[in-house]
Amino acid sequence: MKSDVEIAQAAKMKPIEEIASKIGLVPDDLELYGKYKAKVTLDAWQRVKDRPNGKLILCTAINPTPAGEGKTTTSVGLADALSRRGRKAAAALREPSMGPCFGMKGGAAGGGYAQVVPMEDINLHFTGDFHAITTAHNLLAAIIDNHIQQGNALDLDVRRITWKRVLDLNDRALRHVVIGMGGKAHGVPRETGFDITVASEMMAILCLSRDLMDMKERLGRIVIGYTRSGRAVRADELGATGALTLLFKDAIKPNLVQTLEGTPVFIHGGPFANIAHGCNSIMATKFALKFADVVVTEAGFGADLGAEKFLDIKCRFAGISPDAVVIVATVRALKMHGGLSKKELEKVDMTALKKGMANLAKHIENVQKFGLPAVVAVNAFPTDTSEELDFVRRECEALGAEVALSEVWAKGGEGGEALAEKVEAALQKKADFRYIYDEKETIPEKIGKIAREIYGAAGVDFTKEAQRELEELEALGFDKMPVCMAKTQYSLSDDAALLGRPEGFRITVRELRLAAGAGFVVALTGSILTMPGLPKHPAAMDMDITEDGRITGLF
Amino acid sequence: MKSDVEIAQAAKMKPIEEIASKIGLVPDDLELYGKYKAKVTLDAWQRVKDRPNGKLILCTAINPTPAGEGKTTTSVGLADALSRRGRKAAAALREPSMGPCFGMKGGAAGGGYAQVVPMEDINLHFTGDFHAITTAHNLLAAIIDNHIQQGNALDLDVRRITWKRVLDLNDRALRHVVIGMGGKAHGVPRETGFDITVASEMMAILCLSRDLMDMKERLGRIVIGYTRSGRAVRADELGATGALTLLFKDAIKPNLVQTLEGTPVFIHGGPFANIAHGCNSIMATKFALKFADVVVTEAGFGADLGAEKFLDIKCRFAGISPDAVVIVATVRALKMHGGLSKKELEKVDMTALKKGMANLAKHIENVQKFGLPAVVAVNAFPTDTSEELDFVRRECEALGAEVALSEVWAKGGEGGEALAEKVEAALQKKADFRYIYDEKETIPEKIGKIAREIYGAAGVDFTKEAQRELEELEALGFDKMPVCMAKTQYSLSDDAALLGRPEGFRITVRELRLAAGAGFVVALTGSILTMPGLPKHPAAMDMDITEDGRITGLF
Repeated sequence: MKSDVEIAQAAKMKPIEEIASKIGLVPDDLELYGKYKAKVTLDAWQRVKDRPNGKLILCTAINPTPAGEGKTTTSVGLADALSRRGRKAAAALREPSMGPCFGMKGGAAGGGYAQVVPMEDINLHFTGDFHAITTAHNLLAAIIDNHIQQGNALDLDVRRITWKRVLDLNDRALRHVVIGMGGKAHGVPRETGFDITVASEMMAILCLSRDLMDMKERLGRIVIGYTRSGRAVRADELGATGALTLLFKDAIKPNLVQTLEGTPVFIHGGPFANIAHGCNSIMATKFALKFADVVVTEAGFGADLGAEKFLDIKCRFAGISPDAVVIVATVRALKMHGGLSKKELEKVDMTALKKGMANLAKHIENVQKFGLPAVVAVNAFPTDTSEELDFVRRECEALGAEVALSEVWAKGGEGGEALAEKVEAALQKKADFRYIYDEKETIPEKIGKIAREIYGAAGVDFTKEAQRELEELEALGFDKMPVCMAKTQYSLSDDAALLGRPEGFRITVRELRLAAGAGFVVALTGSILTMPGLPKHPAAMDMDITEDGRITGLF
Repeated sequence: MKSDVEIAQAAKMKPIEEIASKIGLVPDDLELYGKYKAKVTLDAWQRVKDRPNGKLILCTAINPTPAGEGKTTTSVGLADALSRRGRKAAAALREPSMGPCFGMKGGAAGGGYAQVVPMEDINLHFTGDFHAITTAHNLLAAIIDNHIQQGNALDLDVRRITWKRVLDLNDRALRHVVIGMGGKAHGVPRETGFDITVASEMMAILCLSRDLMDMKERLGRIVIGYTRSGRAVRADELGATGALTLLFKDAIKPNLVQTLEGTPVFIHGGPFANIAHGCNSIMATKFALKFADVVVTEAGFGADLGAEKFLDIKCRFAGISPDAVVIVATVRALKMHGGLSKKELEKVDMTALKKGMANLAKHIENVQKFGLPAVVAVNAFPTDTSEELDFVRRECEALGAEVALSEVWAKGGEGGEALAEKVEAALQKKADFRYIYDEKETIPEKIGKIAREIYGAAGVDFTKEAQRELEELEALGFDKMPVCMAKTQYSLSDDAALLGRPEGFRITVRELRLAAGAGFVVALTGSILTMPGLPKHPAAMDMDITEDGRITGLF
């Protein structure tokens, strides 16, 4: 079997203008970045903004396990399958971060024969969007520290600057730093830290903005810290909103690439799926919906985290909603949810499968609570037996979900045709979309609804610290915004060890963080690392490039 | 008078393919970045590498003063003037850094009617080259700290890690930091700091590499620090050379843009002119020399620093040399060298001018010491009188230099025709290029030759610290490389206050730094800040972007 990068490199890409023309984008709509990548201009948007939207399919998954589910791969393969069936299809996906690329996981642009290309470029600098975020984020930080150094006219409390710095790398030694050392000429000493760029509030802002002027407003609204008297200070008070915005003049334009089979893919933005909302930009999704008849997009992690935030945050800000939701599962992963270890997954164990099926059942139920038709994509593995597959199929159908086997990893779009057929059937059903909460409810009410209805929790507790933060947010008037849940992705609960469908558990909110520019309050239910570390043997150590430019070790 | 950005925005740019075709570059040679920027492929190089080179004109200056000399403006205008005179001309220039752009000086792509466009893009992210350096530099840093965290198999001395981190911003609070705080899971605490990206050794490496494989070797050769027993540790020992190199797969390709008058300009790389060598990449210069008949390039700061390093470092590594050297001066700046303050420059003061003329005379003499014909470009100001201009002309001619008035700022290429004529005359003279020192000489010998012959110093002293470093470099075998002088740009001496042509002074070497990957030893003669700070009122505060994408405040 070839590796992902070998398959990607063997692909014969078409010029991006040719791909673009499939959905009615003309050469003048594109700003080329080499032959196979382009940004789509904002003028193109002006031309199509009054058109009706195409159909939107959200791809999500059961709670992830080490067995792997293949959500991006399924999204890509499904878009290819829809194309094969004569649809004017496109996908809208997230940009990968370089941190994990050089750390644990190598590339992130699908897998096998369901990949987006040029995968090396997409996984490295791509069109520079993340670099724009890194630069703007750190420019704001530099302006804050310069403000303090030059006299601190705003009376910023140096112990309460919440705006950190970012790099698009895994670098644990930067999590906690002391800056401004070295004496009077070199700044005011204070404790701070670095997050990975995907955790920047500016990443969330890029992804939630309707256009550049909306983005400018949101950048100005960022709360960077507090004065010594406790007043929240906005980025705009530092006079840098214009400079920050112009750094995004190109980054705000969605990027266009192609699948191995030539389906157009908009890739744009990639916020964390824990402390942020975890899906590609509103602009990319909206562009895709105007140009294509059917658009496949994805949300981070499992449906409890990624899909909930896609629906309650992104859809709310964008004024859109999906017409169907695909939930990706594998027999192997369901067996893990039923209690088997990774080594035991080869064997048939119907008891474990039945127990683990409860996790998938809850996610189907959740999709239906949002008023949306659910389609289960069972991502095929060679070890799956027909007994197991039949069981999963019957259970899903009993819950009112469409279900299909997906073989896109091995077969590309052809392997996704059965799934595409079920998705098309689901699109015939009438979606009756509703949010889980009203953003005007109190923060505890909003979190309570998510916890009880989506996670299946018995209730929610706030630590003393979180309670104090809640009172401050309420006092400052920051509580009437959507809530962005930061929770372990491995369990429906806030305990990563509770697999399957736990019951009777309570959710503990440990911290509330304000993202006033993005427009949400983050509720942290555990300690979330916003700057990953490198492993003992980083993926970077196995990467190389030859004299003729061939890259190895990205996978 | 319109501002630079207004002039630039009013320009009607031509598609970059059309500009490229002027020097024989075909569409397949280009990787477009939008309509007006491109990278030139390495395949294009393969096609032309055996052609004879065009003529190379190096543009340098007297020691800079607050009055401003206009070196980049002159380079751009001269290239335009040569084009007007029917030459197949091009320029090769440095990429500007975003740090100063948001700090003090706004944009840096020429001025008036002698500018390179699109100036907003060139001054912001451009094609991402600097971001590639930032990422690769910091990836290496992350790998170093991860190596220490994971057991420190190489026995790195955490007190002697010389590899810092970088950002392409002015951020004084990052000059001295403590990282790895927060406990065992978050790295090993140690002191370090951030430089601006242009000060990264990787920037120097990008600019001194012949191709990607040469760059790979140089990246592996970087000395990142020392073991506890004092052994120098190379980047290659950390196993990351391949990953670092592939981050440069696009950055290594020269960028092509255009002047306001449509002359092709290669802009690529921009190393500091103090702790690095301060000129654009060897690849950009070599590409330009193969495609154009005459190429104008520039070196940083005055001729004592920038031109010396261009000639002794870049030319040595590249195997090229200029055919003529343009020295830019202004009557105003010469009067400052003669003792006038900035407020007194409007008045005619022949005594001051005569005294200040000595600075220019020394630079003419220096160019001739390298065996090269000198052309003085007197950058015209409205306050210049014919008495002053005649005096400068006579003095230059007496020294054997061609001299011409340059009016490119106000008139573009037309204002550079007189200069172009003199440059063409100089090109008829036979250059007899020689280096100032042999790289195999000892470090004190090399520094001594530069100090005595170029600066006019009486001698060189090493501080105790520098003496200790010298002995270590000699013991480790790092002394047979060119020396990169880091000295104040304002004086021929190492004392910024000594203007004109000081005599009898001595140079004090305070520190020696190894840049084993770039291939030189840096001799610091004063305290050089490698991370600038922001001023009280950063230029960023006056920048903005409108709904239709028009940028203001870049100038």
